[in-house]
Amino acid sequence: MRLALLYSGGKDSSLAAYLLDQMGFDVKLVCASFGVNDDWKYAKQSAEALGFDFEVMNLERDILDEAQKIVKQNQYPRYAITHIHKKALEAAAQNYKILSDGTRRDDKSPFLGLQDYRALEDGFGVEYLPVLRGFGHKTINRLCRELFEIEEGESSKINKGDYEGELRTHLESEGLDIQEIFPPHTQTRVISKRTDNVKGDEGKKD
Amino acid sequence: MRLALLYSGGKDSSLAAYLLDQMGFDVKLVCASFGVNDDWKYAKQSAEALGFDFEVMNLERDILDEAQKIVKQNQYPRYAITHIHKKALEAAAQNYKILSDGTRRDDKSPFLGLQDYRALEDGFGVEYLPVLRGFGHKTINRLCRELFEIEEGESSKINKGDYEGELRTHLESEGLDIQEIFPPHTQTRVISKRTDNVKGDEGKKD
Repeated sequence: MRLALLYSGGKDSSLAAYLLDQMGFDVKLVCASFGVNDDWKYAKQSAEALGFDFEVMNLERDILDEAQKIVKQNQYPRYAITHIHKKALEAAAQNYKILSDGTRRDDKSPFLGLQDYRALEDGFGVEYLPVLRGFGHKTINRLCRELFEIEEGESSKINKGDYEGELRTHLESEGLDIQEIFPPHTQTRVISKRTDNVKGDEGKKD
Repeated sequence: MRLALLYSGGKDSSLAAYLLDQMGFDVKLVCASFGVNDDWKYAKQSAEALGFDFEVMNLERDILDEAQKIVKQNQYPRYAITHIHKKALEAAAQNYKILSDGTRRDDKSPFLGLQDYRALEDGFGVEYLPVLRGFGHKTINRLCRELFEIEEGESSKINKGDYEGELRTHLESEGLDIQEIFPPHTQTRVISKRTDNVKGDEGKKD
């Protein structure tokens, strides 16, 4: 069961990849890029450190232009990030029948609701499995601590292959005030496996 | 990582058990019972057929009385089932630190929202992992077909260890019109493993 997982190199999408692999899915990590920068290479490093197949998926620049309009309307990036994420899932749906990502129970952005899930599944003939949707931050943080070596820091200082980096760069080039729009927050990137648990079978009951 | 999963013998809670086992959790299946009948034995049969540890957890009868009041107010069982499910999770939280169940993305009943998740986790010091929360019916049905032999039929005719059976019996004994209150719907019970995939490691990538 081949599955494409939208991947940034952060701890959430890394944990989702790990769990889906454990479940028996053949996980391919897909990093969306507009070609604004080559930050996808950080996602690739993380994917390789965890032993997963990886590919870059190029997204149309008009998605980024639309995201910029959304940011201008709202003056914060939440809905723009969600817009890009939906479009990235739709793009992945052209090549894969089963899709996943690292979205979690507590996520504000990207945030997809039940109607978005159904629009994606019914509109594109795919299955969408946001495997961390039921997981809370306590569980996710605990599992990630056990499984991964993680780099953590203020968002602008962590190199990872997420939409935020390219959106920041794009908005900056358009003259928008990035410091104003993006509130300071913490990001993570997975550096390596902490134990052989990753892609191994230790901790299994039998 | 020991985990207690509220279990009825149906396909959803069986799939949740399978996936969490694959993820590396040490899964204990827990069937809640008010002692109104011994339908928990059907859940036990399913648990044994899948190779999982099983226990019955006795719930206080006043939970059932409260559920009866809720049914009388609404004239349908949805909120009563949700009430029982919350209380069952709280009861399991007395003995286990990590809890799960078979609730899914599309479930109407029992239905727990984010605020319920947080009340359970923060109020009882547990982690709650509704692992199927992100899964849609298409994926769940496909996986269950591949993994399990399933008995399916109209709700009143399927023997399983869920709350509905005991709630029906209790309401009937109190003179309520069961046919009126419970709309006809389909239930499932897992009879056996379909392949060695269950609790095995086939289908894994490496």
